[in-house]
Amino acid sequence: MENIQVTLPGGQSIQVRRGIRIDELMSPTDGDQRDVISAKVDGRLVDLSRALEKDCALEWISVDSPEGLDVLRHSTAHLMAQAVQSLFPGTQVTIGPTIENGFYYDFKRTDPFSQEELEKIEKRMAELAQAKLKITREEVARGEAIEMFRKMGEDYKVEIIQGIPEETVSLYRQGDWVDLCRGPHLPSTNAVRAFKLTGVAGAYWRGNEQNEMLQRIYGTAWHSKEALKEHLRLLEEAKKRDHRKLGQELGLFMISDAIGPGLPLWLPKGAMVRSILERYIVDIERSMGYQHVNTPQLARVDLYKRSGHWDHFKANMYPIMEFENKEELVLRPMNCPHHITIYKHGLHSYRDLPIRLAELGTMYRYERSGTLSGLSRVRAMTLNDAHIFCTPEQIQAEAVGVLRLIERVYKNFGFKDYWYRLSLRNPTDQVNFVANDAMWDTAEAHLRRALGEVGVAYKEAPGEAAYYGPKIDVQLNDVLGHSETLSTVQLDFYLPERFELEYVDKDGQYKRPVMIHRGVISTMERMMAFLIEHYAGNFPLWLAPVQVRILTVTDGHKEYAKKIFEQLRDQGWRVELDGRNEKLGYKIREAQIAKIPYAVVIGDKEVAAETLAPRRRGGENLPPAPLVDFIRRLESEVAQEMGAA
Amino acid sequence: MENIQVTLPGGQSIQVRRGIRIDELMSPTDGDQRDVISAKVDGRLVDLSRALEKDCALEWISVDSPEGLDVLRHSTAHLMAQAVQSLFPGTQVTIGPTIENGFYYDFKRTDPFSQEELEKIEKRMAELAQAKLKITREEVARGEAIEMFRKMGEDYKVEIIQGIPEETVSLYRQGDWVDLCRGPHLPSTNAVRAFKLTGVAGAYWRGNEQNEMLQRIYGTAWHSKEALKEHLRLLEEAKKRDHRKLGQELGLFMISDAIGPGLPLWLPKGAMVRSILERYIVDIERSMGYQHVNTPQLARVDLYKRSGHWDHFKANMYPIMEFENKEELVLRPMNCPHHITIYKHGLHSYRDLPIRLAELGTMYRYERSGTLSGLSRVRAMTLNDAHIFCTPEQIQAEAVGVLRLIERVYKNFGFKDYWYRLSLRNPTDQVNFVANDAMWDTAEAHLRRALGEVGVAYKEAPGEAAYYGPKIDVQLNDVLGHSETLSTVQLDFYLPERFELEYVDKDGQYKRPVMIHRGVISTMERMMAFLIEHYAGNFPLWLAPVQVRILTVTDGHKEYAKKIFEQLRDQGWRVELDGRNEKLGYKIREAQIAKIPYAVVIGDKEVAAETLAPRRRGGENLPPAPLVDFIRRLESEVAQEMGAA
Repeated sequence: MENIQVTLPGGQSIQVRRGIRIDELMSPTDGDQRDVISAKVDGRLVDLSRALEKDCALEWISVDSPEGLDVLRHSTAHLMAQAVQSLFPGTQVTIGPTIENGFYYDFKRTDPFSQEELEKIEKRMAELAQAKLKITREEVARGEAIEMFRKMGEDYKVEIIQGIPEETVSLYRQGDWVDLCRGPHLPSTNAVRAFKLTGVAGAYWRGNEQNEMLQRIYGTAWHSKEALKEHLRLLEEAKKRDHRKLGQELGLFMISDAIGPGLPLWLPKGAMVRSILERYIVDIERSMGYQHVNTPQLARVDLYKRSGHWDHFKANMYPIMEFENKEELVLRPMNCPHHITIYKHGLHSYRDLPIRLAELGTMYRYERSGTLSGLSRVRAMTLNDAHIFCTPEQIQAEAVGVLRLIERVYKNFGFKDYWYRLSLRNPTDQVNFVANDAMWDTAEAHLRRALGEVGVAYKEAPGEAAYYGPKIDVQLNDVLGHSETLSTVQLDFYLPERFELEYVDKDGQYKRPVMIHRGVISTMERMMAFLIEHYAGNFPLWLAPVQVRILTVTDGHKEYAKKIFEQLRDQGWRVELDGRNEKLGYKIREAQIAKIPYAVVIGDKEVAAETLAPRRRGGENLPPAPLVDFIRRLESEVAQEMGAA
Repeated sequence: MENIQVTLPGGQSIQVRRGIRIDELMSPTDGDQRDVISAKVDGRLVDLSRALEKDCALEWISVDSPEGLDVLRHSTAHLMAQAVQSLFPGTQVTIGPTIENGFYYDFKRTDPFSQEELEKIEKRMAELAQAKLKITREEVARGEAIEMFRKMGEDYKVEIIQGIPEETVSLYRQGDWVDLCRGPHLPSTNAVRAFKLTGVAGAYWRGNEQNEMLQRIYGTAWHSKEALKEHLRLLEEAKKRDHRKLGQELGLFMISDAIGPGLPLWLPKGAMVRSILERYIVDIERSMGYQHVNTPQLARVDLYKRSGHWDHFKANMYPIMEFENKEELVLRPMNCPHHITIYKHGLHSYRDLPIRLAELGTMYRYERSGTLSGLSRVRAMTLNDAHIFCTPEQIQAEAVGVLRLIERVYKNFGFKDYWYRLSLRNPTDQVNFVANDAMWDTAEAHLRRALGEVGVAYKEAPGEAAYYGPKIDVQLNDVLGHSETLSTVQLDFYLPERFELEYVDKDGQYKRPVMIHRGVISTMERMMAFLIEHYAGNFPLWLAPVQVRILTVTDGHKEYAKKIFEQLRDQGWRVELDGRNEKLGYKIREAQIAKIPYAVVIGDKEVAAETLAPRRRGGENLPPAPLVDFIRRLESEVAQEMGAA
C-alpha cells in the first residue's frame, strides 16, 4: 500500500497510508482535540470521516471557531429537518442554510408552525441527538439522486439537483433521513450541543414573490449551553433595547400611516434629544473651522445628471416633480451637489483652502416599504454632512482633523467598542476604480499617515475603496456584536472632475481640488436609533430629554416644588414637575420607567429645610441638599460626560 | 329757485340754492381750504365742480390726505397720458390707475419708452400743467362715447366702454385731450404739484399673456416738492437696503440656476444668522412651555384631502410623487396636519391642555417662476410655526401668552413701527365664515380681552377673519411705509372638526379642542429678508454673522493677533482674523463694507501694551483696552440688545 505525506497543524510531517480517514489521525487522549468537529485539507473544509488520497496539509477545526460553529449550525439545521419530517410526514424540505448565530430551514407547508409545534420539534431533535446517529456522506450520480428524491416525493430537491451542473452530487444520511448537501457535517447527531428554535416566518420559494409560500423555522446553535444561554440573554437584551420599542415607550418618535411609512415624526422628547445632538455637533464643527450652510432639499434633475447620481442611483431616488415649462425637480438623494454649487459660486485661491462646508442636510431615499424599520431604515434622513474642498497636499491634515473630531465625539458619547477600517483600491483593477495611480497612491498614503498620526489601530481592506477614492470607515459594534459604519471619511477625485471644480494655485495655474465627504454622527435617525439601543434608553444627563423630574409628596408641597422647578428651568435645565395627587411610590416608579436621570422628592422635611431629596435613575437615594448643591452636582456630572470618557 | 340744505364739515347747516357748485361754497380767503382739491358729498368723493342737487353733507378733501393724494395721482396719470399723446401722436391709451405712492398708464406701443423719452414727457407734463388747463367732466351716452373714441382711433377705450353695463359714461377733458374716466379729478392741470416718472415695464393688455404687450410708464406724485423729495430719498434708501442686493454683497445667500428658482442656498454667513434666529426663538418658546417637534416635510396626499388643503390649496401645492402600490406622497404646503397627527397620537385629558406643539417647519409652495424674488417669495420656506390645542376657556390666556411672546421678541429686534389688527367675522355672513355663532362670539371676545390685557392698541377689521376663525395679525412697516404681516395668531374651529380632535373634559365627556395657529418670526426666509432691510445689513451684535474682525498692521503682529482671535473664538464669539499683507486702511474699509460690528486693530502699541484697539462699525475709534475689557463691552452690548429696547 502506498504512503502519503500529511503535514499536521503543528508543522510536523508524517507518513501515513493513502486512503486513511482523517479521524484515524486524531488522538482520543489529546484534550486539545476534544472539540474538533471538522478539518481543513489544504485549506478546504471537510468531514472528519474524509479519506486522504494524496500528500496534504491538515488543520483541525474546533467547534467554537467561526468555521466550526458554521458546521455545527448546519448539522443542527439537518437535525431539525429530520425531526420535522419524522413528526410531520409528507412535509417536503427545500433549503436550510446557516446564518449569523444560527440557521433556518424552509418547509413546504401551508400553515405556520405553532409555538407548541416548535417545542415538539426541539424535543424530537434532542431525542435524535441522543440516538447518536452517525452522519455519513455519499456521492451519487446526478440521475440517481433525482430518481431517489422523486420517489421520496421531494420535488424541491429534484428541482435543485436539476439546476446543478455537476454529474455527481453529495448526500448526507443520519439514520433513515437523507438530504442533498455539500457538507461538511458533524460526525454524529450527538455532536450537536446546544440549540434553540427562535422563530418562524413565511418565505417564498427561491425568494420570489411569484412562487409558493414556504414555512421557515429559525434556530440558533452553539458549542456549549453557556454560549447558548449568553446568546439568548443578549437577544433578550437587544429586544429590550430595540429602539422601536423604547422609542414608543419613552415617547421619542412615532410612525403614522396618515403620513406614510419610513417617515418618522419626532415627538417632543425625541425632538429634544435631536436638537441637543444637532447643536452639539454644529458647535463642535464650527469651533473646528467648518462653515455650516443651509440648502434646499431638492434641485433640478439636471444637477444629478451632472453628478452621476441619476445614472447610478436613480433606483433609490424619489419620483420627479414636473413644474411649469417642463422644469423637473427631485428631492435630493445626497447633499454633495448642493455644496459643490456653493463652492462653484466663488473663485478660490489656494489660500482659501481648505473650505469645509457642513450641513445637517436632509436627504430622501426611495426604499421599498417592506424594508423600512423604525428610525434605522427610513425614507427621509438628516445627515451630519460635510464636504472639505482641499488641495492634494492637505489631505492628511484634513483627515487628521476629522479623525480627531470623531475621537472627541466618541468620548463624549462613551463609545468604546469600535474600530477603524481603511478601504484601499485594488491596484490591478483599473475598471472599478477611477484610474489615476499617482492620485490614489498619494491619497492612500495620506490616509494611512493620518491614522498613524492620530494613533488609532485600523484594518486595511484592499479592494474595498469606493470607485471614486479611498476611505476610512469607523465601525461600531452593537450589543449583539454586529458592527455598523457610523462615521466615514471618503476621498473623492471624481465629483471635482465632473463639476470642473477649480482653485488657483501658487503658480497661478487652475487646479482641481480634492473633495472629502465626511460624516461623524451619521444621520440623526440612525444615530438616535443607535443611541437608544446603546444606552438602553438611559440617556446620559447631557442628552436626556428630561433631566430632572420633581415629585411632590402631597399638595402642600406644590408651592415650594414649583419654585424649585422654575429655578431649574430658568437656569436651562430640562425639568418636569409631577404635582399630581398620586402616591409617591407610584410617581417614583413612573419617573424610573421614563428613565429620567434624577427624580427629586419634595416632602415636609425638604420644605422645612429648604432642601430637596434627589434620587438617581438607578434607584440610589442621595442625601437631601439645597438646590444650589444639586445644581452643582448636575453641572459636574455634565462636565464629566463632556470631558474625558 | 328751490333751496337745499348743506351740512358743512364743521357740522353747521346752510341753505343754498339747488344746483350750486361745490367750489362756490369754498371761501378763497380760508387758509384751511387752500389745499382742498376734492370733496365728499354724503361720503362719496366728487369733483369740486360738481353741482349739488339735494340736501347733503359735505366734507373737504385735502390734497395731502390719502384720498386727496389718490385724486392728485389720478390726475397726474391723465396729465402724463396727455403729454405722451401730444409727443407721440397715434399712441393709443388703455388704462391708467393709481397705485401706492403713484400711478401708471399703459400705452399701445411696440418699443419701451427710453429714459430720454421719459424726460421729454416729464417736461411736456410741466408745460401742460403751467397751461392751467381746466379739467372738466361730462356725461355722455354709451353709444356716443364709443363713436367718439372709434373716430379717435382709441380701440382699447372702445373695448372698455363696450364692457360697461351703464347707459351713461363719464369723460374728463383737459384742453383738447379727453379720457374715459369715473373721476374725480383736480379742477385744473396746474393743481398737479410734484411728480416724477420712475420707470417703465412691459404689461399685457388686461394682464393676460395671450393678449398683446403694452408699454407701461410708472410715476409718483405728491402734494409738495418736499414730499416728493422725501419719497425719492426713501426709494433710494430702499434700493440700498434691498435684501437681494445686500444678501449678495454680504455673502448671505445665493440663488442658483443649477438648483432651481425660488430655492435659495444660505451661504455660511446667512446660515449663521439663521441658526442664531432659530436657536433664539426655539429657546424662548421652550421656556414658555412650547414643545418642539420635528416632522417629515411630506405626507400622503390623503392627509391633505382630509385637511381640506387639497380642495382649497391644490394650485399652490407641489406635484404628487407616486410610489409603489400607488402610494401618493406630496411635499407639505403647511405644517398643521403633521401637528394634528401628533395630537391624535395620544388620548388627552383637559388636564393636559393646552398642548403647544412648535416646529421650525419647512413647507413647499408652488409659485410661478415669474413671481419669485430673493428670500421674500420662494418655493420652500421654514416657518416658525406652532399649534396650540386648548379648551375654549383657555383661548384668552393662550392669546395673551402669544402676544407677550411677540412683544418680547419685537423688543429684542428693536421693532417699533408696527400695529395690531384684530380680524373679526361679518356676523351677517353665514356663507364665508364657519357657522357657529356662540363659538365666534366667545373667541372674538377672548381675543379682544387678550389684546386689552397685554395693553396694545389695535384696529378691528370686521369681515376680515379667516373662514375658520378670528385672528390677530401684527403689521410691520418697512422703510417705505409698506406694512406686511409678520406675526399672526389665528383661531381655528374647523380643522379640529375635520380631524375629529378630542379631549376628555372634567365631566368625562369628549369635547373638541380649539386650535390656535401662530407664528412669531414668520418664515426664516421672510424674516431674514425683513431683517436685512430693517437693519440695512447692519445686524445688531447678537445677530451679526461675524461680530469681530481682527486686523493686523504688519506680519509682525500676527502672533499676538492669533492669540486674541483664539481667545475670542473659544469664548464663543464669532470672530475673523484678517492677517493679510495689505494696508491697514484697506482692511478697515473692507471690514466696514462687510458691516462687521467691531474691527479690532493690532499694531505695535497693542502688542507692546497687550491691548487691542476696537473700532465700531460706524467709524468710531474706541480707546485701546485689554481683551478682558473688550469682552466685557461685547457682553454688555449683547445684554442690552436682549434686554429692554
